[in-house]
Amino acid sequence: MKIAVLPGDGIGTEIVAEAVKVLKALDLKFEMETAPVGGAAYEAAGHPLPESTLKLAKEADAILFGAVGDWKYDTLDRPLRPEQAILGLRKALGLFANFRPAICYEQLTHASSLKPELVAGLDILIIRELTGDIYFGQPRGRRTAVDGHFPGAEEAFDTMRYSRPEIERIARVAFEAARKRGKKVTSVDKANVLETFQFWKDVVTEVHKDYQDVELEHMYVDNAAMQLVKKPKAFDVIVTGNMFGDILSDEASMLTGSIGMLPSASLNDKKQGLYEPSHGSAPDIAGKGVANPLATILSAAMMLRFSLNQGEAAARIEAAVQKVLAQGLRTPDIYSEGTTKVGTAQMGDAVVKAL
Amino acid sequence: MKIAVLPGDGIGTEIVAEAVKVLKALDLKFEMETAPVGGAAYEAAGHPLPESTLKLAKEADAILFGAVGDWKYDTLDRPLRPEQAILGLRKALGLFANFRPAICYEQLTHASSLKPELVAGLDILIIRELTGDIYFGQPRGRRTAVDGHFPGAEEAFDTMRYSRPEIERIARVAFEAARKRGKKVTSVDKANVLETFQFWKDVVTEVHKDYQDVELEHMYVDNAAMQLVKKPKAFDVIVTGNMFGDILSDEASMLTGSIGMLPSASLNDKKQGLYEPSHGSAPDIAGKGVANPLATILSAAMMLRFSLNQGEAAARIEAAVQKVLAQGLRTPDIYSEGTTKVGTAQMGDAVVKAL
Ligand SMILES: CC(C)[C@H](C(=O)O)[C@@H](O)C(=O)O
Ligand SMILES: CC(C)[C@H](C(=O)O)[C@@H](O)C(=O)O
Repeated sequence: MKIAVLPGDGIGTEIVAEAVKVLKALDLKFEMETAPVGGAAYEAAGHPLPESTLKLAKEADAILFGAVGDWKYDTLDRPLRPEQAILGLRKALGLFANFRPAICYEQLTHASSLKPELVAGLDILIIRELTGDIYFGQPRGRRTAVDGHFPGAEEAFDTMRYSRPEIERIARVAFEAARKRGKKVTSVDKANVLETFQFWKDVVTEVHKDYQDVELEHMYVDNAAMQLVKKPKAFDVIVTGNMFGDILSDEASMLTGSIGMLPSASLNDKKQGLYEPSHGSAPDIAGKGVANPLATILSAAMMLRFSLNQGEAAARIEAAVQKVLAQGLRTPDIYSEGTTKVGTAQMGDAVVKAL
Repeated sequence: MKIAVLPGDGIGTEIVAEAVKVLKALDLKFEMETAPVGGAAYEAAGHPLPESTLKLAKEADAILFGAVGDWKYDTLDRPLRPEQAILGLRKALGLFANFRPAICYEQLTHASSLKPELVAGLDILIIRELTGDIYFGQPRGRRTAVDGHFPGAEEAFDTMRYSRPEIERIARVAFEAARKRGKKVTSVDKANVLETFQFWKDVVTEVHKDYQDVELEHMYVDNAAMQLVKKPKAFDVIVTGNMFGDILSDEASMLTGSIGMLPSASLNDKKQGLYEPSHGSAPDIAGKGVANPLATILSAAMMLRFSLNQGEAAARIEAAVQKVLAQGLRTPDIYSEGTTKVGTAQMGDAVVKAL
C-alpha cells in the first residue's frame, strides 16, 4: 500500500506533518512518499501539478493532501494557479465522489454561529459530485455575443452538463451511504430553472427504485441553503452536483463552528482517494505552529477506512481525537475559556499518545 | 401612475390584499388593476403568464406581486409551471436588478438561528443580477454526449454567460447603492473555476474605477456562503450573478430568522419594477388567515420609493411597520411569548391604523 503525501501551501506542511506522525505511530505496513503541489510546486517546478507529482498520485492507493493557495499567486495565469492542482488531480484520477461530513463535536457546540440546540449532535454528510458539472464542461471561454441582451458585446461563458451515468453513480454512492446512516437522502437541484438539474432529478428518482429502504427528498438549492441555517439536523445525506455542492458543503461546514475539525474524502470507482481537510491553506497563520491538525488527522482516518481497508485503525484515530478533545486540548481556532491552548505539534503528539 | 396587482397563488391573495389596503389608506393618486398569475392564471386561462397579464404588467409603472407555486403544479410541463410567470416577467420587462435586503429587526433578533450578537442590527443588501447567467443562457437542453466522461450517453446541459454591459450595469447599481449605505461592495464570483466569473470579476474591477469612494472586495461564492454564517455583519452590499444570488440571498434572508418580514424589488433601467415578498407561496397555510403580510407591505413601500417617486409615503409605511412591531403585534411565524398573536388581516389593519 502506498500513500502519496502532498502537503501543499500555507499551513499544509504543518498539518500534514502531524497526520503523518499519527499514521506512523499506528505501525501499519504502508509506504509514504512526499511530493510538492500547488504554489510550492509552482515555485519548485514551474507548475502547480508537476508530472512527477501526478505520476506519484496516480500510482498511490491514496493521497494525503494538505491545502493549496496563497494570495501571492492570484496574478498568475489561471492554468498556473495553485487550485488547478486540485482540479487536475480530481480529473486525472476520476475522483467523482466527494464526501464532506459536517459534524458538530459535543465539546465544540458553543463555537457554532448557530444556537446550541440547533447544532448539538449535528451529523450530516454532503456528497458532492466532483468531476462533472460546470467545473469541467466544454465549451467555455470568451467571445462576441451573437444574441442575448447585448448582441455584439464581449461575453464569457461556461457549460453546465451532466450525463446519465455520471448522475447514476453519484446517486448510488449517496443511497449506499444513507443505508449505513439515517436512511434519508436529500437530492439538491434547481430543476425549476435548469435542464441539467431537471435531468439530475429524473435520474436520481429512477436510481431510487433500487433503494426503496432509503427515503428520497428533492429540494431546490436556494431552499437547501435556507434549510441548512433553519434546521440543519433535518438532513441526513445530501447529494448534489459539483457547483451546488461546493457552496452547500462549505455553508454546512461553517454551521458546525469548527471547520478546523472537518475531514473530507474524494473517491473514484476503484476506491482510490484524495483525503484533505475541509478548510483551506490559511496563509495568514502559516508557519506559526498554531494551525489545527485535527481535520487532516481525521482525513487520514477516512483514508484508512475508505482506501486502505483499515477500518480498525481509522476508528483508533477517531477515538484518540475524541480523547484529546475530552482532555480539553485546543488549538487557538477552537479554544475557549477553561480549556488548554496547544499548538499544532502538541496537538499531533497528544493524538499519538491517545492512540 | 398605474400599479399592476398580481396576487398569484397560495398565501399570495391574502398578503397582497393587506398591502393594497395599506396603499389605499395613503390617499395617493394611482390606479390599481389586478390580474391572475402563476397557478391561478393557469387555472383561469391555461397559462401561468397570460397575454393580458403580461400586457398589464408592461404598461404599469410597477407590479405588486404576491407569490406563485403549489405542489399540485409540479407535474405540469415546465413552460406551464407557475414559476415560469416570474421568469417571464423578469425577461419581458428586463428586470435585471434585484434588491434583496436582509435586515434583522430588533424585536425579532431572537427568532434567528444565529446567536443574537451575530445578527443584532444586521442590515445587508444583496443585489442579484436577474436577467442573465445560466437562467436564460442558450443553448440548453438534452442531447447525446460527444465527449466528457461518458461519450454516447444521454446528457442535459445549460449555458452560463454574462456580457460586459450586463455586468457593468449591475455593478453600477451596486456601487450607487453602497454609496448611500456602508460604502462597501462585496462582489461574489467563482473566478477560480468559471470563465464567466473571471470576466465578472474583471469587469466589476474596471467599473470600480468610477467609484473610488466605495470599497470593493472580491469573494468566492463558497467562501461567501461561509462568511454569511460566520460574520454576516461584515457585509454591506453584496453583488453577484443570477444563480449565486438566488442561493446567497435566500441564505442571507434566513439568517434574520424572519423571512416573513423581508421585501424585494426587481428593477429595469426605466425604474419600472416588480415588488414581492422574499418568501414563497406557502400553500400549507394558504387561506387560513395566518400569513404574515409585512414583507408584502414593505415591498409596497419599496415600490413607492423606487418606481413611484413617493419616498415620503414609503417612509410612512416603514415607520408604521416599526410601530406595530413595537406594539407587540405578531403573526404566528414571528410570535414569541409575551407578544400578541394576530392574523393576516388584523396585522394589515394595525399597519393602516399606525400610518
Ligand atoms: C479551489 C477550488 C477550485 C475548489 C472547488 O471549487 O472545488 C475548492 O473550493 C473546493 O471546494 O475544494
Ligand atoms: C421560482 C424561481 C424560478 C426563482 C428563482 O430561482 O429565481 C425564485 O427562487 C426566486 O429567487 O425568485
